[in-house]
Amino acid sequence: MIRTIVWGENIHEHLNETVGRIYPDGMHTTIAEALRRDEAIAASTATLQEPEHGLPAHRLDETDVLIWWGHRDHGAVSDEVVEQIARRVYEGMGLIVLHSGHFCKPFKRLMGTPCALRWREAGERERIWTVNPGHPIASGIPDNFVLENEEMYGEFFSVPEPLETVFISWFAGGEVFRSGLTWRRGAGNIFYFRPGHETYPTFHDATVQKVIRNAVHWACNPQPAPIQCHEAPNVPVDSAPEPISERGPKLHQAGEAGYR
Amino acid sequence: MIRTIVWGENIHEHLNETVGRIYPDGMHTTIAEALRRDEAIAASTATLQEPEHGLPAHRLDETDVLIWWGHRDHGAVSDEVVEQIARRVYEGMGLIVLHSGHFCKPFKRLMGTPCALRWREAGERERIWTVNPGHPIASGIPDNFVLENEEMYGEFFSVPEPLETVFISWFAGGEVFRSGLTWRRGAGNIFYFRPGHETYPTFHDATVQKVIRNAVHWACNPQPAPIQCHEAPNVPVDSAPEPISERGPKLHQAGEAGYR
Amino acid sequence: MIRTIVWGENIHEHLNETVGRIYPDGMHTTIAEALRRDEAIAASTATLQEPEHGLPAHRLDETDVLIWWGHRDHGAVSDEVVEQIARRVYEGMGLIVLHSGHFCKPFKRLMGTPCALRWREAGERERIWTVNPGHPIASGIPDNFVLENEEMYGEFFSVPEPLETVFISWFAGGEVFRSGLTWRRGAGNIFYFRPGHETYPTFHDATVQKVIRNAVHWACNPQPAPIQCHEAPNVPVDSAPEPISERGPKLHQAGEAGYR
Amino acid sequence: MIRTIVWGENIHEHLNETVGRIYPDGMHTTIAEALRRDEAIAASTATLQEPEHGLPAHRLDETDVLIWWGHRDHGAVSDEVVEQIARRVYEGMGLIVLHSGHFCKPFKRLMGTPCALRWREAGERERIWTVNPGHPIASGIPDNFVLENEEMYGEFFSVPEPLETVFISWFAGGEVFRSGLTWRRGAGNIFYFRPGHETYPTFHDATVQKVIRNAVHWACNPQPAPIQCHEAPNVPVDSAPEPISERGPKLHQAGEAGYR
Repeated sequence: MIRTIVWGENIHEHLNETVGRIYPDGMHTTIAEALRRDEAIAASTATLQEPEHGLPAHRLDETDVLIWWGHRDHGAVSDEVVEQIARRVYEGMGLIVLHSGHFCKPFKRLMGTPCALRWREAGERERIWTVNPGHPIASGIPDNFVLENEEMYGEFFSVPEPLETVFISWFAGGEVFRSGLTWRRGAGNIFYFRPGHETYPTFHDATVQKVIRNAVHWACNPQPAPIQCHEAPNVPVDSAPEPISERGPKLHQAGEAGYR
Repeated sequence: MIRTIVWGENIHEHLNETVGRIYPDGMHTTIAEALRRDEAIAASTATLQEPEHGLPAHRLDETDVLIWWGHRDHGAVSDEVVEQIARRVYEGMGLIVLHSGHFCKPFKRLMGTPCALRWREAGERERIWTVNPGHPIASGIPDNFVLENEEMYGEFFSVPEPLETVFISWFAGGEVFRSGLTWRRGAGNIFYFRPGHETYPTFHDATVQKVIRNAVHWACNPQPAPIQCHEAPNVPVDSAPEPISERGPKLHQAGEAGYR
Repeated sequence: MIRTIVWGENIHEHLNETVGRIYPDGMHTTIAEALRRDEAIAASTATLQEPEHGLPAHRLDETDVLIWWGHRDHGAVSDEVVEQIARRVYEGMGLIVLHSGHFCKPFKRLMGTPCALRWREAGERERIWTVNPGHPIASGIPDNFVLENEEMYGEFFSVPEPLETVFISWFAGGEVFRSGLTWRRGAGNIFYFRPGHETYPTFHDATVQKVIRNAVHWACNPQPAPIQCHEAPNVPVDSAPEPISERGPKLHQAGEAGYR
Repeated sequence: MIRTIVWGENIHEHLNETVGRIYPDGMHTTIAEALRRDEAIAASTATLQEPEHGLPAHRLDETDVLIWWGHRDHGAVSDEVVEQIARRVYEGMGLIVLHSGHFCKPFKRLMGTPCALRWREAGERERIWTVNPGHPIASGIPDNFVLENEEMYGEFFSVPEPLETVFISWFAGGEVFRSGLTWRRGAGNIFYFRPGHETYPTFHDATVQKVIRNAVHWACNPQPAPIQCHEAPNVPVDSAPEPISERGPKLHQAGEAGYR
């Protein structure tokens, strides 16, 4: 079983009547139910309002893939939780960031870039094209599919050049957007997926749900143990893989830790 | 002229007799002099001890390429200056990070990863191989060259997969390291170059100097104006590139800024 | 001066009245004239009908960037010339492939993939978006520009994942296409640029011309000498960079060439 | 079950006494037996001497991953079989190329580059470092491992910049080599793995065997159906995803195939 957490900001569902009607139990619940249609996925949820936003370190340590949707209050996410998420991604936890999550703290932290874009909320038609049909995330997805009402996101999307581009969106209003992008950071697989404005029923769409299930499978890294990627260990001369003798001047004493 | 700043931490030159003897005017001065041997490069310096570490925003705004060497006191660099550097990189300022700078704040901020590695200070032989001989940074560099005494850095180097790998180091003690790596972040070109431990005369080496000069040319982005990459502008319906009509429910009022 | 050859198939200009009227001296001539507006570029032309298609090895050896437009008779290009082009690209000659050139022999040879796509000739609107505004090829290009009448090319474009994606096209008929893609092969920079159907005046468009001029500058690799990338030289034991002794059984005799 | 074929050239096992003693049933048999230790892998073999080299199209159509070892007689592989292999890779068959296979026809065909390197047969020590410990191919592989006697391969290895670099080799004689590299071509995953000179018992090494088993799992693409990547279908105006009207001059008649 792939252990997932669907994290929802869980604000607009309560403040906005339209959102509340489309997602009466919260967007995170709708997404988690969509994941459970795959017997290999165990889906739980967490929200901003819980202690540590429902993401204490011990829970993250037992999570294979974290899915993130946030929009109104990115700033309310604590920096400590962000660092724990980043640590777990380096160790191999997958991260799937949805729609307005492009501006969430964990994504900006891991990308190292502004993650900005242009946008328009006009309920216009979005047509999503598969530009990497052999990628596991595109498995079973048609060459293109339509979301009749979506918010527009347009380029330039200021993220690092991805490992691979999987989807590109066409908008009725004339823009395009790289809608499905992958990166690896440490042992962690990261996928950004564009659709999902809260005033439209996007997460009830069967194709959108299938993309997210595919992404969970792709993002899950079954490596048996966390990799060593945080520390900068000293390798003493007498432990060098090949025998060498120490030469020349030194800055550090034997066994000393490096500067950070 | 390519306007560069060579930033030096400027500590060990004063604390450690060996370092002070090799770099009596500071490592930053030696590197800047090496850059000035290229008539197309204008090299200035800045150090940790100056106000704003010598990097006020207005100076960064008139800088094409920033070169960074730091080691002992990465934590002393102010977060405000780090954010200004990151902003300028997105806008097109090149960044060249040398040796122990792998752990400096601006590099970790832009990579989004731990940037850790293993190390050994034994004055051992480093042999640097060119694995991308057509890359501009390798122009005029032989297929391999030797630094007789260097600190060892070994993999795993926890950075994002680079755009291109230019150099790989062989160490007498048995390790290897990806010693020349490139990334683009926004409009900014970033190059990490491994050699340069302060107790050895690495920055007096002619080949090392040539690599850094090549990297300055490569990193300089002559784009006439800063790109728009920080903000997420709204595109009103009546400004859409293709005519569309507004449909469906809305979250935002016309002209409202998005959430961050 | 960057020495360029604009290669034109030079067929439809003579067979099709529309094409002949738009490009009375051939498309290659129009493109070459556009390049000459940049004082740093020296532009010559070559066509399919010339001996060796105007591309004898000695001429390629003195060429920095080759620009290719072909459509009707890709198969007429000789395999010997294709191999000479590939050799020069590995050695550092830039290659810019335009529009229907996606199916030309040199491009398929260098990509190693089918380079297929879907298409429609309906004179529809193409809107080209810059998705990598800091890339040198996008220098001075607006965030998007329109070609009012173009042939549609749609994904999946079966090429290798590029080094960077620079432009993406939006079509009125609903498709998207990765319209500006870069690769490096050996020391050679390769750029594919989508627009340029022969029945429309695309190569008279000022923005299209600027993109091609930018691409010539980007593709030009000023490396002083061809890199060694074709041969697999034996390194005899007594020439090993580090001293070693020969051990164990051998297949090859000393000085023998490897198998190919 | 992942359906694999281990292809062996099967020449040196019969000509060279040393090779015959290490691999009495052929290298392909040793590798296939190593794969069968994983219950999820079904391993068969094929050799150069069989009709169509044991790789008729119908057999390739039922193969998930092809593993290739060849050295002495690359030229004897028929171009028709090479094209069938390339076709299947685009459609999703994985390809793992071992050691001297760097010069085999299918690999050069798919890379589009010379795939050259430097080499030395001196039985020297090779130390292979994991530089991407989170990659599935590195699962369970230590941070480095040693092959006491191997042929040296040195950079520059003239292949396209990989999707990811997984392993880098250190050689006692002073060279380095990117020993584990990945690419995707169409829907096909390709992995090059360096070790495996026939006069040494490399394919009896447990860690080498584990890397190859990991690579089989990684390379297998469980996409349900071959992707469309060979043809360039016309999309008639009345089948455009969004309604458009035909405009302007045309080159092609309705329903006509494009030029190739």
